[in-house]
Amino acid sequence: AHIVVLPGDGIGPEVASAGVAVLRAVADRFGHAFTFTEHAIGGDAIDRFGDPLPQPTRDALLACDAILLGAVGGPKWSDPAAKVRPEQGLLAMRKMLGVFANVRPLKLHPRTAALSPLKPERTKGVDLVFIRELTGGIYFGAKTRSDSDATDECRYSVEEVERVVRHAFELARARRGKVTSVDKANVLETSRLWRSVATRVAADYPDVALEHQLVDSMAMHLLTHPADYDVIVTENMFGDILTDEASVLAGSLGLSPSASIGGPGAGIYEPIHGSAPDIAGQSAANPLGTILSAAMLLRHSLGLAAEADVVEAAVDDVLEHANLTRDLGGTATTHAVTRAVLDAIQ
Amino acid sequence: AHIVVLPGDGIGPEVASAGVAVLRAVADRFGHAFTFTEHAIGGDAIDRFGDPLPQPTRDALLACDAILLGAVGGPKWSDPAAKVRPEQGLLAMRKMLGVFANVRPLKLHPRTAALSPLKPERTKGVDLVFIRELTGGIYFGAKTRSDSDATDECRYSVEEVERVVRHAFELARARRGKVTSVDKANVLETSRLWRSVATRVAADYPDVALEHQLVDSMAMHLLTHPADYDVIVTENMFGDILTDEASVLAGSLGLSPSASIGGPGAGIYEPIHGSAPDIAGQSAANPLGTILSAAMLLRHSLGLAAEADVVEAAVDDVLEHANLTRDLGGTATTHAVTRAVLDAIQ
Ligand SMILES: CC(C)[C@H](C(=O)O)[C@@H](O)C(=O)O
Ligand SMILES: CC(C)[C@H](C(=O)O)[C@@H](O)C(=O)O
Repeated sequence: AHIVVLPGDGIGPEVASAGVAVLRAVADRFGHAFTFTEHAIGGDAIDRFGDPLPQPTRDALLACDAILLGAVGGPKWSDPAAKVRPEQGLLAMRKMLGVFANVRPLKLHPRTAALSPLKPERTKGVDLVFIRELTGGIYFGAKTRSDSDATDECRYSVEEVERVVRHAFELARARRGKVTSVDKANVLETSRLWRSVATRVAADYPDVALEHQLVDSMAMHLLTHPADYDVIVTENMFGDILTDEASVLAGSLGLSPSASIGGPGAGIYEPIHGSAPDIAGQSAANPLGTILSAAMLLRHSLGLAAEADVVEAAVDDVLEHANLTRDLGGTATTHAVTRAVLDAIQ
Repeated sequence: AHIVVLPGDGIGPEVASAGVAVLRAVADRFGHAFTFTEHAIGGDAIDRFGDPLPQPTRDALLACDAILLGAVGGPKWSDPAAKVRPEQGLLAMRKMLGVFANVRPLKLHPRTAALSPLKPERTKGVDLVFIRELTGGIYFGAKTRSDSDATDECRYSVEEVERVVRHAFELARARRGKVTSVDKANVLETSRLWRSVATRVAADYPDVALEHQLVDSMAMHLLTHPADYDVIVTENMFGDILTDEASVLAGSLGLSPSASIGGPGAGIYEPIHGSAPDIAGQSAANPLGTILSAAMLLRHSLGLAAEADVVEAAVDDVLEHANLTRDLGGTATTHAVTRAVLDAIQ
């Protein structure tokens, strides 16, 4: 299998190389041949190519089996008025690959749950997966700007809603059989469309329960009853906000992986944390979010479930016994934690 | 002063009458003449007039000094595909009155902070005010719907942004001197407009510090560092989500008031909780959110700051010493808690 690695900015290169090391260890142990090529994205690509998603990167993305991404962005390129911005690379890549489903599992590990701002009795038993629509909505709608005003259009087609909602139902079927669809159907036309499609799709899944939640209520219930949820599916902008809110429950962003999948080609796998320029180059970044993203890559893009299980078990083992990085209350370096995972894989 | 009372649905009438009782007590104690007239809104108005904001209500709203609202909505009228829905009354009223600034103060009382899902060390010192833009954005933009897709337009003019941002700066000047402006300037054109206007307005307030936050980061920081914030200003949709998320910090929704102000006429004062149809008619609703909203009414629409202080002190007193409603871990009825506040006012 051919994997494109996009190190990106800040701590991106450090965590990406941890992910690659783990994938190499898996290849060795299971006798697979993985090849890796690195390409530029984000701020790094702006500096080197004047483009956050340069042509060589685009070509590579269309010709590979899976993509491992570090992180993108940083204060150096963050002027919102700038003509080219790192996150444009991210958005262009998502659209180009058609990865309409952003999958973010959230589980609490006993050792790190103590770091959550929520009381432990609230987070007990949390085991949910967000499916955020990733290639539609207000992110990609028509925009206008004049001296006196600005507009952004949110648009959803029935097909766009249906494919991502089906993805959620398929996943729920393999889990605890519950889908929570989040919208703002009391105000938005796109949300009324969303709700009617979700309701229609649900008829094909009599074994799965569907509930609808308004986005404002959901922002509350995620904090008051997070253990009530199994699969949560929502549109792009609501998903951006709610997945970040939910990620706090885990205590550290450093642990959470994500997969952006559903397109005809490669999926994108990346930790949910950002580029954290303040700790870049210090071997202080937590590599576990990227390593768990690599596990998702094995499972979803390469069909290697047993291999993914081994990586996840290795991370569990490290979370249980090893010295962890600073964000998890430890004193270990990125290298040391990666090494501990590699040892647990061998 | 003439006050229109909109009891609305579910527990709305119970909490609204608690608010009226408190305003009457204030009038008695301070020798003011307040008159009250009740009008229909929401589901109740749909049932009686076939319209969630009937003409008699509209006429009254335009001729009064302030509006006290209970709550609107309920499962009976909640089919999102229905032609008339209770919340349309709310939205039409906001637009008609031009109340562009929705103000939601959030403070934690020591006795109720224990009910928060957040650990006490996280919520220590939280004292913030949200200013949510309330009459623009995607709520009021053009909408389309066909068999195959739907759209909602988010539009902001420079004037719409400027007036609400100025409101935030004025408020911050009278508080701790910090404004946090929340947008999604890395994706949305309306957010880039928002950010540029906020930055320009800030120049008129050299004594106030302005920081910009992306909405997804803000959803996290509200949980990890809530005590860092003073005045938070944001657009309509983001404000809907973030204010509900933030309200959870207080432990109970039942305590939080809101004011919708800034228009040429009357302001709207209401608790942030909903109509809670499951407990309607049982005298189980917490009246304190409405009573604190009545205090905001005295302060902002009637210019009666000393009177507002007395009501707020009475609520503090009740929170300290009285048996509270169920949501706050007590066993008291709506009536009993209201009576306790009235006693503390006399
Ligand atoms: C960087 C930004 C454009 C991006 C988004 O909003 O999708 C990020 O917040 C994310 O969630 O991946
Ligand atoms: C009922 C609904 C239309 C309303 C809104 O979204 O503004 C409510 O959630 C609120 O926050 O007042």
